[in-house]
Amino acid sequence: MVPRYTRPQMAAIWSPEARFRIWFEIEALAAEAMADLGTIPRESAEAIRREGDRRIAAISPADLERIDEIERVTRHDVIAFLTWLGETREDGSGMGEHARFMHQGMTSSDVLDTALNLQLVRAADLLIESMDALLAALRRRAEEHALTPTIGRSHGIHAEPTTFGIKLAGHWAEFARCRRRLVAAREEVATCAISGPVGTFASVDPRVEAFVAERLGLRPEPVSTQVIPRDRHAAYFCALAVAASAIERLATEVRHLQRSEVREAEEYFHPGQKGSSAMPHKRNPVLSENLTGLARLVRGYAMPALENVALWHERDISHSSVERVIGPDATIALDFALARAAGMMEKLTIYPERMRANLESLGGVVHSQKVLLALTQAGMSREDAYATVQRSAMATWENLGTPGGRSFRDNLLADPAVTALIAPEALDGVMDPQRDFTHVRATLARVFAEA
Amino acid sequence: MVPRYTRPQMAAIWSPEARFRIWFEIEALAAEAMADLGTIPRESAEAIRREGDRRIAAISPADLERIDEIERVTRHDVIAFLTWLGETREDGSGMGEHARFMHQGMTSSDVLDTALNLQLVRAADLLIESMDALLAALRRRAEEHALTPTIGRSHGIHAEPTTFGIKLAGHWAEFARCRRRLVAAREEVATCAISGPVGTFASVDPRVEAFVAERLGLRPEPVSTQVIPRDRHAAYFCALAVAASAIERLATEVRHLQRSEVREAEEYFHPGQKGSSAMPHKRNPVLSENLTGLARLVRGYAMPALENVALWHERDISHSSVERVIGPDATIALDFALARAAGMMEKLTIYPERMRANLESLGGVVHSQKVLLALTQAGMSREDAYATVQRSAMATWENLGTPGGRSFRDNLLADPAVTALIAPEALDGVMDPQRDFTHVRATLARVFAEA
Amino acid sequence: MVPRYTRPQMAAIWSPEARFRIWFEIEALAAEAMADLGTIPRESAEAIRREGDRRIAAISPADLERIDEIERVTRHDVIAFLTWLGETREDGSGMGEHARFMHQGMTSSDVLDTALNLQLVRAADLLIESMDALLAALRRRAEEHALTPTIGRSHGIHAEPTTFGIKLAGHWAEFARCRRRLVAAREEVATCAISGPVGTFASVDPRVEAFVAERLGLRPEPVSTQVIPRDRHAAYFCALAVAASAIERLATEVRHLQRSEVREAEEYFHPGQKGSSAMPHKRNPVLSENLTGLARLVRGYAMPALENVALWHERDISHSSVERVIGPDATIALDFALARAAGMMEKLTIYPERMRANLESLGGVVHSQKVLLALTQAGMSREDAYATVQRSAMATWENLGTPGGRSFRDNLLADPAVTALIAPEALDGVMDPQRDFTHVRATLARVFAEA
Amino acid sequence: MVPRYTRPQMAAIWSPEARFRIWFEIEALAAEAMADLGTIPRESAEAIRREGDRRIAAISPADLERIDEIERVTRHDVIAFLTWLGETREDGSGMGEHARFMHQGMTSSDVLDTALNLQLVRAADLLIESMDALLAALRRRAEEHALTPTIGRSHGIHAEPTTFGIKLAGHWAEFARCRRRLVAAREEVATCAISGPVGTFASVDPRVEAFVAERLGLRPEPVSTQVIPRDRHAAYFCALAVAASAIERLATEVRHLQRSEVREAEEYFHPGQKGSSAMPHKRNPVLSENLTGLARLVRGYAMPALENVALWHERDISHSSVERVIGPDATIALDFALARAAGMMEKLTIYPERMRANLESLGGVVHSQKVLLALTQAGMSREDAYATVQRSAMATWENLGTPGGRSFRDNLLADPAVTALIAPEALDGVMDPQRDFTHVRATLARVFAEA
Repeated sequence: MVPRYTRPQMAAIWSPEARFRIWFEIEALAAEAMADLGTIPRESAEAIRREGDRRIAAISPADLERIDEIERVTRHDVIAFLTWLGETREDGSGMGEHARFMHQGMTSSDVLDTALNLQLVRAADLLIESMDALLAALRRRAEEHALTPTIGRSHGIHAEPTTFGIKLAGHWAEFARCRRRLVAAREEVATCAISGPVGTFASVDPRVEAFVAERLGLRPEPVSTQVIPRDRHAAYFCALAVAASAIERLATEVRHLQRSEVREAEEYFHPGQKGSSAMPHKRNPVLSENLTGLARLVRGYAMPALENVALWHERDISHSSVERVIGPDATIALDFALARAAGMMEKLTIYPERMRANLESLGGVVHSQKVLLALTQAGMSREDAYATVQRSAMATWENLGTPGGRSFRDNLLADPAVTALIAPEALDGVMDPQRDFTHVRATLARVFAEA
Repeated sequence: MVPRYTRPQMAAIWSPEARFRIWFEIEALAAEAMADLGTIPRESAEAIRREGDRRIAAISPADLERIDEIERVTRHDVIAFLTWLGETREDGSGMGEHARFMHQGMTSSDVLDTALNLQLVRAADLLIESMDALLAALRRRAEEHALTPTIGRSHGIHAEPTTFGIKLAGHWAEFARCRRRLVAAREEVATCAISGPVGTFASVDPRVEAFVAERLGLRPEPVSTQVIPRDRHAAYFCALAVAASAIERLATEVRHLQRSEVREAEEYFHPGQKGSSAMPHKRNPVLSENLTGLARLVRGYAMPALENVALWHERDISHSSVERVIGPDATIALDFALARAAGMMEKLTIYPERMRANLESLGGVVHSQKVLLALTQAGMSREDAYATVQRSAMATWENLGTPGGRSFRDNLLADPAVTALIAPEALDGVMDPQRDFTHVRATLARVFAEA
Repeated sequence: MVPRYTRPQMAAIWSPEARFRIWFEIEALAAEAMADLGTIPRESAEAIRREGDRRIAAISPADLERIDEIERVTRHDVIAFLTWLGETREDGSGMGEHARFMHQGMTSSDVLDTALNLQLVRAADLLIESMDALLAALRRRAEEHALTPTIGRSHGIHAEPTTFGIKLAGHWAEFARCRRRLVAAREEVATCAISGPVGTFASVDPRVEAFVAERLGLRPEPVSTQVIPRDRHAAYFCALAVAASAIERLATEVRHLQRSEVREAEEYFHPGQKGSSAMPHKRNPVLSENLTGLARLVRGYAMPALENVALWHERDISHSSVERVIGPDATIALDFALARAAGMMEKLTIYPERMRANLESLGGVVHSQKVLLALTQAGMSREDAYATVQRSAMATWENLGTPGGRSFRDNLLADPAVTALIAPEALDGVMDPQRDFTHVRATLARVFAEA
Repeated sequence: MVPRYTRPQMAAIWSPEARFRIWFEIEALAAEAMADLGTIPRESAEAIRREGDRRIAAISPADLERIDEIERVTRHDVIAFLTWLGETREDGSGMGEHARFMHQGMTSSDVLDTALNLQLVRAADLLIESMDALLAALRRRAEEHALTPTIGRSHGIHAEPTTFGIKLAGHWAEFARCRRRLVAAREEVATCAISGPVGTFASVDPRVEAFVAERLGLRPEPVSTQVIPRDRHAAYFCALAVAASAIERLATEVRHLQRSEVREAEEYFHPGQKGSSAMPHKRNPVLSENLTGLARLVRGYAMPALENVALWHERDISHSSVERVIGPDATIALDFALARAAGMMEKLTIYPERMRANLESLGGVVHSQKVLLALTQAGMSREDAYATVQRSAMATWENLGTPGGRSFRDNLLADPAVTALIAPEALDGVMDPQRDFTHVRATLARVFAEA
């Protein structure tokens, strides 16, 4: 992922050093388990741990280059790593003959897949942390604006009043679900396989797998082929794609609220910030637009993850190039997006007066359902009531802001079909905006009860 | 979905009649709840239920045409349905004036989204049922061939022996995970919203929602906008996409096993079946190839489902056309694929002798790891042992079937570096194929313990 | 595709009858070519043509059922068709012994793939026709509103004035490109293969292929495997996906223009139409939202088409189930969307006064670039000019509609840094809206010159 | 893209330095055009060119850091670049007051989009070059093996003989089409827009655009919004996705040919290469598997490119994050894949004897169509001939390699229904393998005639 959309803590999980550190940890733990079982000498396991720890702790760019150099000959990344890990240096340091007891009965995928899963688990932990920051921001703003009236819109058209708190609570609830899906995705990939070339434990005892899994906080994979099955990873990347889509929904809302004709909310505009190279007056919702693009990227990564499932026989390596790219790219992009969304919502400038002005801008037609219900309650058929209310509403709408334009209330009161059933003072009760908010507190309470 | 890939029980869930039946049930239940709360007259709720039940029970093609006709004027599907449901017939039958108490304070999405979710729940139930048939077939064949030796392959190249039971158990475990994901997906969409135009319960009591939800076996949606949030549906269709990809992996395995050079298994070939219009000798794995294509389709439906999440404000209707298509198409295609996969596995012809012949066809090089380990255990460095074994293996491989070709065993025994460390009789012990199967029973046991 | 989104002329291309008609045509033409070459008797070719024409012309639901019945035994669709086509009826009618000269040296894919391509060519022709209707509507409205001023928006924020004609011309140009891509896509698939089981013409003369291709308006495929290569079809469905995305851009524009705070345009609202079951005041942009959903569907179909390319060896049949679904579904959905978009644009209600009101609603800040340029021309550095103009623009913006709020012009004139370089009367010249439209006519001319 | 899948020449196109070099070139050319038109002083244009050239030529990591630093304040990349480009250094160097004449009447997108398109054009040129290398390799190998017999397979099952040259020619033809699509994609994006904030040329003369376009080898975009329309880019990335899918087909073929039971071809195995960390005998088709994964990635990038089309109004910036990632990632991955595929095919080890052995391994049933045709020519009905041939073929197939197993020829000759119509010596003529290759040379000629 490009540096622009990368946070260091997520990048760190995917660095070569971090990967080699995990690879070594798996080999060292496996050696310890084998020593416990008597498969290899205890002193070899100890030497592997001691010398390996030392070498890994001091890993340098020159080491990375050395590993690459070996790989250019062997064309095999794990063998290159093991060779480097076990080779004796000019100063005589190294595991010496104990090196041959590393990786006994194991296959590269035992290391590669367990390591990948550990990286994905750590990435999920970070994503959940970023999600929590977003949830906290959304909840704080939702409670702050629990009863701030604003117009609810369907199809982009004013529908009925709601509150800004309800809007944000809807997003909170969606991200709370996304968080649960991330937790489930983390569980999906929290497995370990040390089961040999075709998953039969032909030359490695299953207790080695159990030991390594337990130490790494993973579960043994019940049955692997050569690899840990990729449906787990597909489900993981799908969970990321859904979360990204939820971010897009939030971003889309902010973009709409900031547009010039709406202006109900605005991303924080920094001192010194410039909106446009040409037009000094511009303040653009660039964060939310950026989030929209990032959502597209993360969604796009789900497709190759799904295609990765159908490996041939006990495995082929076609999944590897995909995962080398989307492992980091999807988690880094989503992590960045979550953090950016949290910051955006924390600092979002909200304009309650503007919300109220917009709410009232259509002459009151947004109360049409309440009048419809009052008419049916008063005995009019639903079809007639609908036609009656639609007539007044359309008349209001079409003459908005024109000289002869009347409010919805006035148009209704000019209609004998209405006044025959509802007295003017009763109409005001029917259209009382406070009626819209009766259940808002209870709704918010039930949403956040899920936290 | 085209009839060719449609099973009637899944199609039934998505028929217009089934949809209208659910729509009516929601309206009738809501009316009953409103009567309990005193919002509408009890006798109206009773009339709605009685007359509606009667009309729905007798719904005919002529009724469907009548509903379409109304929709062509109103351009609104729910209004068309309600109008038809409430209209008085020429024979005087109908709800009469009680009709106006249907749908009080509700919005179309209350009906549409609750109904869609109920359809998706029922579809999930059927998918789980189809999945269970597939799981049962896989488990039966896995146990039947628990210890049938076959070659494990990575990269399409013979790796080490495994058993056909272990292969099938891997698929079983994958589908068992897919089943859990389907159950989770079912839970995702098992919600109900009766919360009015913008989710505020402005004109409908939340107890109506609670009542309808409980009667339909759903949970109230904690907070809706105008609609039930679409991240739920995106997660649902992603779960289908992962299951489809698992089917593709199984199908790919069968396709490989049936290819002319392998011939380890074969789809059942019916009497009278013709493999090719041109070549009478053909018996093709057409079921598994068909499953591969169906998997692509189901995967493809996940993308529009993900794009559906970011609706505008309290909703726009862009999701609707997508769902009218992928709701039926994705569930029908996956259901058909699961049922077809179950049948294919039930009747799969398996050729154990051919498996054994293939296993032995490479002169024994498939035991190379065990020799490598024996050499390192005997004191050789891992690099030297690797080179030594690779030398004999490549010599074997390159001369397979040629006059001077020797088995892997013979090549090893001709190498002093080997014989210096391993005696000929010990080598046979090292290469004993039974060593590969020591842990097979235990592995199968731990897999099926998850059932 | 569901009937709701299906136009009959496109559905007709994909009907079983249409498919069988093409299959027969291919067989009959091939027989004629073989008779020319002396491979089969002339009278047999004549009998095939005569009897087949008669049978196909009278094809009935009972025939379709008969073909299905044969397929249930043979499990092969082309063989089932050929059997039905050649079988002697109870009344003695049929080709008799001449039937055996059908399909000589051919393989099913020769028929299936050539037929599919012919269907795709016809579908493309219809799509191009629908596209032409949309292009015509866009061009008419663009010319009608060539100089109707409206605000251009980037990031949803008012940028600078443009004209509604320019907006529509942009969409016209995009669809003109999409049309060219459809023409190219049509060419991609306008090929024919009659080359036998593995594309070698082992038992069929290449002149048969040339003859059939020429009569059907296709080109011979230079080299086929068993099938016509699927990169052609992938490119075809990608062209559809791009066109669908262009429709989404147009739909998104309309949805924005109709939103309550903008109201610059509105989809035609039919007499009797109802916008909402709950809120009689609603007039929603349901056509454009529907188009947005259809675009998602058509985009989604491109993925399985791309996955279809990598068939195994000379072919596997995994592409078939995909194409049976997306062949009709993608072309029908796009055709419907194009036709709907054309109708929507034809009848779109456009509100020029509202466009002008919105354009002027921000106090003139939309002329900020022209002031910036005037200041730099007058000697101010770009950075200082930017800061100066931004100061006045932000002051205008933040106090819009408040008592002390001043227009951009007044704020500028209150700034000595501005007045030191630009006289008040010169400022009016700088901000003259007509300057924005100097090049509009020329731009429109160059766009439509591409027609 | 990760370094592992990156070739330096493609990476260079996407480096920050390369991007800034293009940005400057656009500004300098625009200034020259404006000087020609008298909009800005000639000496300013000259100073911009001279000082800018100098600064760009010496651009250093410190400069990149300086640009980033300015962007952290302005939050606008183009403004940060222009500020750096125009600022006076401590040593007094710089454009001085001439700097204010850069970017007159332009908007950032004029620079950004024209630059992106130029990068995409250059990337396409490189892709075409890589494609040419692959085409050359395929053609060379196709001609080398023009008449090397091999079995053609449909559904993975032996069908009829073909030649390896025909197989490779099919891939050549597919890549030749992909090359044409890349050329078309290059044309799609070879446009330039210098049309100001909303594409109206309000403050910039269209002749500036014409001048810049001509100098950069681009065409003026007939009508832009603020941006160059993204349907062009969507089509571009779709062309890449189709090419990637063609690579996957080739890779899939190689993977199949190398599998242990087939062994008809093999990727070059380097001295020192190790196939597996566990199994020294392994030689795996890792290049082709890697290509398969890369194809998935490139396909995945097409989806966000398609979603980028529907920008809001005159533009939003959601496309930008997508393009910052997929611009480089998709072109780099495809370029690497093409180069790798070319190398793989150049060095592919091909085993003609193994091809012949496989071809003959099914006892001759692969000649079944020719016998079927001979029987129908001799007067048998197609249905009877099919059943007759199928009978002998299945008997051959089912007893392959068993003691009583007979060849297809012998089974046929034991069937009186056959011998009644075809004499034994005639049967040998019918089954003569040379008949399969009659049209091979002509087919190859017509394929390569398209070059």
